[in-house]
Amino acid sequence: MNFLEERILKDGVVKPGHILKVDSFLNHQMDIQLMEQIGKEFHRRFGHLPITKVLTIEASGIAVAYPVAREFGVPMVYAKKTDSVNMDGELYVAEVESYTKKKKTRVIVSKKFLSSDDHVLIIDDFLANGCALQGLISIVEEAEATVAGLGIAVEKGFQEGGNRMRNLGYHLESLAIIEDMDAETGKITFRSKE
Amino acid sequence: MNFLEERILKDGVVKPGHILKVDSFLNHQMDIQLMEQIGKEFHRRFGHLPITKVLTIEASGIAVAYPVAREFGVPMVYAKKTDSVNMDGELYVAEVESYTKKKKTRVIVSKKFLSSDDHVLIIDDFLANGCALQGLISIVEEAEATVAGLGIAVEKGFQEGGNRMRNLGYHLESLAIIEDMDAETGKITFRSKE
Repeated sequence: MNFLEERILKDGVVKPGHILKVDSFLNHQMDIQLMEQIGKEFHRRFGHLPITKVLTIEASGIAVAYPVAREFGVPMVYAKKTDSVNMDGELYVAEVESYTKKKKTRVIVSKKFLSSDDHVLIIDDFLANGCALQGLISIVEEAEATVAGLGIAVEKGFQEGGNRMRNLGYHLESLAIIEDMDAETGKITFRSKE
Repeated sequence: MNFLEERILKDGVVKPGHILKVDSFLNHQMDIQLMEQIGKEFHRRFGHLPITKVLTIEASGIAVAYPVAREFGVPMVYAKKTDSVNMDGELYVAEVESYTKKKKTRVIVSKKFLSSDDHVLIIDDFLANGCALQGLISIVEEAEATVAGLGIAVEKGFQEGGNRMRNLGYHLESLAIIEDMDAETGKITFRSKE
């Protein structure tokens, strides 16, 4: 079991509806030491690739992507979820639909920050159905940049996003893959390392 | 002139309507080396205080608060701008009204992450009218915690937020205070160090 799986067992809370609350250390309150470990682990897994940018999506992805970008010594770009008055200029835009909320969201990145020369490592805190990730991939592809890899802290292995990304041939690394969880007993089962 | 003022002169872009675009290094694409310098500088300015938490607000505050929290060796908490389905339990809530957008936003922090023992350093990327900052202060006060200080990357000195905070007696440190800027000439004038 790795450091993130151990932490999830220690401080994660399973709620009905396949919700895993990790807000005490990963996505509301952040344990910075844990984030630093995550950054180093993604660097260990993707460090052989010529990454030029780390891309994530607001808001909870930012603190996961930060230490990764620092390890690689490259800029971090975060996609915004709606357009803002302060964002002029040309934008890459992806429409993503949340399966759970049945809501369409625009994901945008300024064209200034991604070009065809870029090798992009996409980082996010969670992967469930993969909507956000699909939006980010579509933006990288619109920029004619290379998706070098996908790095996820916690993958819900019982939802389809992860397998879909693997089937599409992306190099996906999830630090913890939850195979099953039970709100009644609180039990969390991780996928064994392949 | 300090490192952030120099960077603003080099890469900031003044737009009509008193908008300063720093999206190439501070709040859309992040220069992580600059963020690290910001973290160290806030630690230099507030390091004598017994800080227990760094508090910021999504999304652009997160990458500024991250290196500050790491320097202090304390957790970072970010306030969310609407309530989310995944956020159960008790919440601290502040309603903030944006002067520019005439829009009310709920700012929330889970009660689990702030208590009366906490000495909170509030960090944000921008300070203009101070609405977001007021919301964060009100949440810290609702928790009966101590507002140890306010650390801002870029203050628009010609708007009222900064002076209001100083008049209220808060220890506010802004790394760059813009006294004036001109969209026609692109000229940016900083407030001299007091």
